[in-house]
Amino acid sequence: MALFNENYLKLKAGYLFPEIGRRTASFITANPEAAVIKMGIGDVVRGIPRPVADAMKDACEELAHDESFRGYPPGQGYDFLLEAIAEHEFGSRGVTVPTDEIFLSDGAKCDSANIQEIFGIDQIVAMTDPVYPVYCDSNVMAGRTGKADEAGRYEGLVYLPCTSDNRFSPALPDGHVDLIYLCSPNNPTGSVMSRQVLAKWVDYARREQAVIIFDAAYEAYISDSDIPHSIYEIDGAREVAIEMRSYSKTAGFTGVRCGFTVVPKELMGSSSDGQSLSLNSLWNRRQSTKYNGVSYPVQRGAAACYLPEGKAAVRDLVDFYMANATVMKAELSAAGYTVYGGDNAPYLWIVCPPGNDSWGFFDVLLQQANIVSTPGAGFGSAGEGYVRLSAFQQRDQVQEAMRRIREL
Amino acid sequence: MALFNENYLKLKAGYLFPEIGRRTASFITANPEAAVIKMGIGDVVRGIPRPVADAMKDACEELAHDESFRGYPPGQGYDFLLEAIAEHEFGSRGVTVPTDEIFLSDGAKCDSANIQEIFGIDQIVAMTDPVYPVYCDSNVMAGRTGKADEAGRYEGLVYLPCTSDNRFSPALPDGHVDLIYLCSPNNPTGSVMSRQVLAKWVDYARREQAVIIFDAAYEAYISDSDIPHSIYEIDGAREVAIEMRSYSKTAGFTGVRCGFTVVPKELMGSSSDGQSLSLNSLWNRRQSTKYNGVSYPVQRGAAACYLPEGKAAVRDLVDFYMANATVMKAELSAAGYTVYGGDNAPYLWIVCPPGNDSWGFFDVLLQQANIVSTPGAGFGSAGEGYVRLSAFQQRDQVQEAMRRIREL
Repeated sequence: MALFNENYLKLKAGYLFPEIGRRTASFITANPEAAVIKMGIGDVVRGIPRPVADAMKDACEELAHDESFRGYPPGQGYDFLLEAIAEHEFGSRGVTVPTDEIFLSDGAKCDSANIQEIFGIDQIVAMTDPVYPVYCDSNVMAGRTGKADEAGRYEGLVYLPCTSDNRFSPALPDGHVDLIYLCSPNNPTGSVMSRQVLAKWVDYARREQAVIIFDAAYEAYISDSDIPHSIYEIDGAREVAIEMRSYSKTAGFTGVRCGFTVVPKELMGSSSDGQSLSLNSLWNRRQSTKYNGVSYPVQRGAAACYLPEGKAAVRDLVDFYMANATVMKAELSAAGYTVYGGDNAPYLWIVCPPGNDSWGFFDVLLQQANIVSTPGAGFGSAGEGYVRLSAFQQRDQVQEAMRRIREL
Repeated sequence: MALFNENYLKLKAGYLFPEIGRRTASFITANPEAAVIKMGIGDVVRGIPRPVADAMKDACEELAHDESFRGYPPGQGYDFLLEAIAEHEFGSRGVTVPTDEIFLSDGAKCDSANIQEIFGIDQIVAMTDPVYPVYCDSNVMAGRTGKADEAGRYEGLVYLPCTSDNRFSPALPDGHVDLIYLCSPNNPTGSVMSRQVLAKWVDYARREQAVIIFDAAYEAYISDSDIPHSIYEIDGAREVAIEMRSYSKTAGFTGVRCGFTVVPKELMGSSSDGQSLSLNSLWNRRQSTKYNGVSYPVQRGAAACYLPEGKAAVRDLVDFYMANATVMKAELSAAGYTVYGGDNAPYLWIVCPPGNDSWGFFDVLLQQANIVSTPGAGFGSAGEGYVRLSAFQQRDQVQEAMRRIREL
């Protein structure tokens, strides 16, 4: 019989969100009358902006005519979108990113899972704990780890604990690592990295010749003006950092699917015998072989986010969800919970009440308040004792959820 | 410096189609007045069907309203599409494929590149020569091969030559292999596998406990009624075969991006200590970690292909391109060329005139007839001495191209 990739056997249970989905479905089946409020998976609920929908519809119409039909998209994306990204996402913040350093994709999740493929299998990988499971699982599946211990920590990975003790800002690794996954604003803790903290990481990476994989999928949720939106706002970051972005939580693209990754041409990797190559060229080779570009109507929709009316609509969506976060933080704090995050991020990271572990409090919230949360332990052992609530809900649902939590 | 994945150093030059694109762009820059006709890359030129465009536009409108908004799509795809696929792609041919064996994706290229990830790194991989480069390159990048020899053949891969001597129908491997990539109707040779030939491969795979990765992206182009469209039309194939399909060449989705892969639950893989697991569950784990589903409007567009008017429009598109192929085959034969394919496939596989190798004849066609072809050698060493012409063009372009070739 053909042998399967045995690294898959190392993976703990299922991917976190399908597991939450299964538990929720099972509760709903047993309690069909329950009005369940979903604040678990970070999925948005509001419609995509009108200019975005219109641009997508126009693009669909274009495709229906031989004269305006477009086939395979350019590998990295259409210039109309790459140029808009360079200008509005980076140029507007004083950061220069040439269009040939931008790789469009069907989402930051895919990119953050695939990016490890261009690195050597023996490279030492560091990530925060708790962490977005995709960073971890993709490295496990590739064979870059040993088995998980009882706490669920994979042998060979370097974990950087983020707890209330360090205000969810991880210490630098004790020794050398090659790859570091950072996410700010952070999923799941809702914390953000200041300019100073980010500069410390860039400095470490330059000193250790390490690569930072910087997930900025939630940068639009930053409200403090001195928090960097891009790692390239830090001097020297172009030589050490890859950055990922997403339209999922800005324009509501969780079901539309679009994101992008920036790989600066200065960022080099080395072979074991010292030959150095631009990681930009390696990612380009990876994408041109294993990927085939983003749907044309989706690219038109993403580009419409940079029109004045598109920008305003995206801003409204972000502001709406952040107003939810503000309500949630105030209500939960008033109800006696210790709550982190929610100021520059759409996630609240809540300390479980005494006597509850993460999955225990997940079950309490589901069964007694009919609220779906995400157990912190699902993001790593240092997430034990927390649950994550997402602010991606309609206002009345948020208010109802807070009412139920007050009455718990 | 972080070490990159050194398997990338083994790859020969660039991926074939970007290389053709570079040569073509360079020719056009030097000859801006030339009316270049593109028959190289297999990209379609006609608009997507009206019912498909309308379904996509309706879906974009749905997404613009909170009441009808949809976020993350279900991992394997929406039931409305999976059910339509099960009924119209398989049920209509007497094949039962349950919906939970169908995995929607953004294209058969991505799936055929990614599928190797669920197999052990030491598995022996067989593929035809010539072959769609993605099968080969994805295995090279994963580390399943050694270096390429002077003929461009990677150490460790088992090549199954397809030449005019065997009518492009490869012999079974001499010994044991674990994975076999087959493509019928074939890209690039345009040949098809009869029921008898396909049964021979299923029989081999059952005997050797091998897995067949069957790429049926061009099945809609089959005109002979006794040629199987799905490998599952062969008894016993569910225990040995994965099948891939695409909307690219049916509904014109090269720029829209959608395809799917079928992994039967009976198809098992083994760990080195004999634990067996369904490859369906492994592919599900791979996709739920490294992928995030197909854009909702795209899924609605794909589903519209199965409406009566959608089916008719797709049939018209396929018939149009096949009529091109018929014209091309007749004209090229009349001009003295030896031509294969083009009867049940949109590709013609043409023997280069004496004194020309593949890239040489590619250059002749480009420079003297201003026609972009694909050099057969780009698909493997057994493709040397051939070029591939694609029938995906407007009729007037096909006629003009044939006129130019007659005058060569």
